[in-house]
Amino acid sequence: MMKVLVLGGGAAGMSSSSRVRKLRPNAEIVVYEETNMVSHAPCGVPYYVEGLFNNEELFMTYTPEFFREKRKIDVRTGYSVEEIDLNSRVVKVRKNAEKKSEEYDYLIIALGAKPKKVRQSGSRIFYAHHPAQAKSLRDDLWALNKIAIIGGGILGVEMAEALHAVGKKVTLIQRSSYVLNKMLDSDMAHVVTDVMSKEIDLRLNERVESIEEEGKVIVTDKGKLEVDGVVVTIGVEPNISLLKDQLKIGKTGAIWVDETMKTNKENVYAAGDNTETRNIVTGKPTWMPFAPVANKMGFVAGSNIGGKRMEFPGTVGTMITKYDRLFIGKVGLNESEAKEAGLKPYSSMIKSKTRARYYPEPKDIYVKLIADEDTSTIIGGQIIGEEEVLGRLDMLAAIVMKRFTIEESFFVEMGYLPAIATVWDPVIIAIRELMKA
Amino acid sequence: MMKVLVLGGGAAGMSSSSRVRKLRPNAEIVVYEETNMVSHAPCGVPYYVEGLFNNEELFMTYTPEFFREKRKIDVRTGYSVEEIDLNSRVVKVRKNAEKKSEEYDYLIIALGAKPKKVRQSGSRIFYAHHPAQAKSLRDDLWALNKIAIIGGGILGVEMAEALHAVGKKVTLIQRSSYVLNKMLDSDMAHVVTDVMSKEIDLRLNERVESIEEEGKVIVTDKGKLEVDGVVVTIGVEPNISLLKDQLKIGKTGAIWVDETMKTNKENVYAAGDNTETRNIVTGKPTWMPFAPVANKMGFVAGSNIGGKRMEFPGTVGTMITKYDRLFIGKVGLNESEAKEAGLKPYSSMIKSKTRARYYPEPKDIYVKLIADEDTSTIIGGQIIGEEEVLGRLDMLAAIVMKRFTIEESFFVEMGYLPAIATVWDPVIIAIRELMKA
Ligand SMILES: Cc1cc2nc3c(=O)[nH]c(=O)nc-3n(C[C@H](O)[C@H](O)[C@H](O)COP(=O)(O)OP(=O)(O)OC[C@H]3O[C@@H](n4cnc5c(N)ncnc54)[C@H](O)[C@@H]3O)c2cc1C
Ligand SMILES: Cc1cc2nc3c(=O)[nH]c(=O)nc-3n(C[C@H](O)[C@H](O)[C@H](O)COP(=O)(O)OP(=O)(O)OC[C@H]3O[C@@H](n4cnc5c(N)ncnc54)[C@H](O)[C@@H]3O)c2cc1C
Repeated sequence: MMKVLVLGGGAAGMSSSSRVRKLRPNAEIVVYEETNMVSHAPCGVPYYVEGLFNNEELFMTYTPEFFREKRKIDVRTGYSVEEIDLNSRVVKVRKNAEKKSEEYDYLIIALGAKPKKVRQSGSRIFYAHHPAQAKSLRDDLWALNKIAIIGGGILGVEMAEALHAVGKKVTLIQRSSYVLNKMLDSDMAHVVTDVMSKEIDLRLNERVESIEEEGKVIVTDKGKLEVDGVVVTIGVEPNISLLKDQLKIGKTGAIWVDETMKTNKENVYAAGDNTETRNIVTGKPTWMPFAPVANKMGFVAGSNIGGKRMEFPGTVGTMITKYDRLFIGKVGLNESEAKEAGLKPYSSMIKSKTRARYYPEPKDIYVKLIADEDTSTIIGGQIIGEEEVLGRLDMLAAIVMKRFTIEESFFVEMGYLPAIATVWDPVIIAIRELMKA
Repeated sequence: MMKVLVLGGGAAGMSSSSRVRKLRPNAEIVVYEETNMVSHAPCGVPYYVEGLFNNEELFMTYTPEFFREKRKIDVRTGYSVEEIDLNSRVVKVRKNAEKKSEEYDYLIIALGAKPKKVRQSGSRIFYAHHPAQAKSLRDDLWALNKIAIIGGGILGVEMAEALHAVGKKVTLIQRSSYVLNKMLDSDMAHVVTDVMSKEIDLRLNERVESIEEEGKVIVTDKGKLEVDGVVVTIGVEPNISLLKDQLKIGKTGAIWVDETMKTNKENVYAAGDNTETRNIVTGKPTWMPFAPVANKMGFVAGSNIGGKRMEFPGTVGTMITKYDRLFIGKVGLNESEAKEAGLKPYSSMIKSKTRARYYPEPKDIYVKLIADEDTSTIIGGQIIGEEEVLGRLDMLAAIVMKRFTIEESFFVEMGYLPAIATVWDPVIIAIRELMKA
C-alpha cells in the first residue's frame, strides 16, 4: 500500500491529500500540521480582526475529524515538523514531548509561507498570518488605540481597513510613493490612496528605521512616532528553512518544481506558498502565494501522485483585495513589470460607471489595461471599483492566459444589463482604446 | 466625397456612423430616425416603468445635437423611412407631410427589431419596446391595478419585476413549464420561478387563446382572467418589412451578412437587431438581438465602410437579466440547444455561495455548465445569483468563444477575496465536476 506523507495542513496540503484519496481509495495518507487547524483560511484573518465574525471554527473549511472520518485522511494536528531528510526518506515530528519519525513513499511539502520579520521583537509588535493565532492577535489589537501598520501591500491595506473599522487610530507607513505598489501602477493606486488618506494617517515615501520600546516607538527617516502597537506587514517568504540544500530552490527563493509539481527529488512534490511557479506571460519563474494557486497546485500534485497526469500551467498573477467599499484587482503584468520583462507595453486607462446612467446608484469603476506592442495581445489589467470587479478580472485572467489579441478581446461578448453594466462595458471601452484605429 | 446613409438611430446606427466618422473625417453621414431619440437604450424601459428614474432624456447616451455638433453626423429625427430601393439606390423618407428622397454611396440598415404582436389590438393591450413610447406606456400602466403579462421571456420577467415593484397585481402567463425557457434549462429556471411565484401570480403551462374587451379579458386554455390591462411580451422579430425580396434574408428571418457586415448587395451593410449572425459554438446562423452585439456589429460595419477591415466573429449568446435581487445569465448553448445542434452535451450544476462562509451575508449562487463530450470543451453556462454574476458570465463568454478545454478552464486563475468569492470559486467547482476523474 502506498504511503503519502503531507507536511502542512493548509490549502495546498488538504487539497493535495483529498485529491490523492479520490484517485487512490487505498493509499495511506498522513498529514502533519503544527497548529490545531487544517484547511483553514488565512484570508479571513483581517475580517476576523475587523469583527465581521467571531467563531474561529469558521476559519476551517473542514475539521480534522471530517478529514479523518469522511476522507480517511490521517490528519495529525499539533505536530511540528522538525526535520526532513530526503535522502533517507524520513521526517521527524514532535508534539510537545512526543517525538516520532515517519517514512513515506510520496512526500508533499505544503508548509506555506511565513511573514517577513523586522529585526526587533516585542510584546507590541504583531504579525497577521495564521488563523490559529487570530484570536490572540485580535484580543491584543482590540486592547490598543493607536496602531501603526508597517507596509502598504495587500495585507497592510486589509489590516488598515479592519483596524479603522473597529475604531482604532491607524497610521500606515509605506516606503513607496503609493500603496499596493507591487500590484498596481501608480495612476491606478491613486484611487486607493485618495480613499485611504481620508480615513487613516497614510504616510507615503517614509522608511522605518527602527522599532523601539517593544513596539511603542517607531523611528522613521522622517521622525518619531508614538503608538500603542505595530502590525508588521512587510511581506511573506516561502517557508523552506527545513529544506535548504536538500532540494532545488528556484530563483524566487521557493521550491522549484516541474509542471507536475514534482521537485527535483523522485517522489517528492511541493505545492502552495512554499513553491515556485512560472508566469504565463513572461515564461519566467515567479512566486504567487495566493489561495487559488495553492489549491490548484495541491490538486495537480495529488493528481499526479494518484496516477492521473496533470500539469499546472503557471500563473497570470490574479490578485484582488479591498479597502472599505473599493475592490481592487490585478491580473497579468502591470506596466513596470512588463517593462522589466523586456516587453513593449502600452496602456489605456478609463473611468466609467458600473450601471447605466439612468439606473440608480451607479458606482465608479476604473480599468487599466496593458497591451504588448509586438504581439498585440493584452498582457495585464487592473480594475478598481465598488461592484462587479472580481468577475471582470476573472475574464481578463482568461484573456491573458490564452493570449487573446486586442481585437479578440474586444469581441468577447460581455453581457449587458442596465443594473450592473454600461452598454459598452468598462472593460470593452478600455480595450477599444488599445486598438490603434 | 463619400455619402453614407444610415437607417435607424439606435445602438447599431449610431455606433456605425460614429465609427465611419472616426475613420473618414470628410464623409457625409446622414442618419434617419423615426422617433425623436437616438443612441437610446430600450434596455432601460422596464426600469423606467419601475420608477427607478423619471427623466426620459437619460434614455439617450448622446442627443441628436451632440452627434450633429461634435461628430458632424447629420442626424435627422422624426423621419420615417418609407421605401428602400436598393437597385436605384434611393431611400424615401417622410416627416409629417414632408417627403424626401435620399441617395447614397453606402447604406447601413439598422432598423432594429419590433415586438411580435397578438392578433387583437385594443386600448389596454401594451407592448414595451421603444424608449420614445416609455412615458405613455408608464402613464397608462401606472393607472391600472391588475395587469397580465403574456410571455415569460426576458422582457416578461423584467416587466413583472417592474410592475410588481410599483404595487400592481401581476399575473404572468407562460406557455412553457418554466420562465426564461429559451434561455435557461429547466433545472436552473426553477430558481427563478420559485422566487417569482412568491410575488406574482405565475401561471405556467398556460396558453392564451384570445384577448377580449380591448385587453380586459384574457381567455386561456385553462379559463378566463379579468384584468385592467395586458402587456404582451411574446418576443421580437427583425424589422425587415421594407426590405423583403431586395436582399438575402437568412434562415433566422434577419438580414444575411458576411463577416464584414455587408449584405449580398454591394455597399449595403446591415447591423444590429435586423441582422443575422453566426453562433460561434455551432457555426450555424443565429439571431442575437442584444445591445452589445448591436453596438459591435455597428462598429464593424462602420470600420469596413471607413476602410479599416474588421470581421465580426459571431456570437456566443451572452444574455443577462434580473428579477428582483436575482441576476440571471446565460452564455453559449444550454442543454437542449446543444442536443438540437447534434452535440453530445453533459453538464454539472452546483449551488454555492458568493462569499466565504465566515464573511457576513453570503448569497446563494447557482452555476450550471455544459460541456461537449467529443471535444471536452465548455460550450455553455448559466449563472443565477445575487452578486458577481455578470463578470463570471463574461469570463465564461471568453472561455466559450475561444473553445477552452475543461482543463484549461479549470486553471483560469479566478481571483479570491473572502468578501466576494469562495476560495474554490463557484465556477471552478462546477468546472471540476465536469472533469471526468
Ligand atoms: C492574512 C492573510 C490574508 C490572505 N488573504 C488572501 C486572499 O484574500 N486571497 C488569496 O487568494 N490569498 C490570500 N492569502 C494567501 C493564502 O492564504 C495562501 O496563499 C494560502 O493559505 C496558501 O496555502 P498553503 O497551503 O500553501 O499554506 P498555508 O495555508 O500557510 O498552510 C501551511 C500550513 O503548514 C503549517 N506548517 C508550517 N510549518 C510547519 C511545520 N514545521 N510543521 C507542521 N506544520 C507546519 C502551517 O501551520 C500551515 O497550517 C492571505 C494570507 C494571509 C496570511
Ligand atoms: C424593453 C427592452 C429591453 C431590453 N433590454 C436589454 C438588455 O438588458 N440588455 C441587452 O443587451 N439588450 C436589451 N435589449 C435589446 C437591445 O435594446 C437591442 O438589442 C438594441 O437596442 C438593438 O439596437 P439596434 O440599433 O439594432 O435597434 P434599435 O435600438 O431598436 O434601433 C432601431 C431604430 O430604428 C428606428 N426605426 C425603425 N423603423 C424605422 C423606420 N421605418 N424609419 C426610421 N427609423 C426607424 C427605431 O425608431 C429605432 O430607434 C432590450 C430591448 C428592449 C425592447
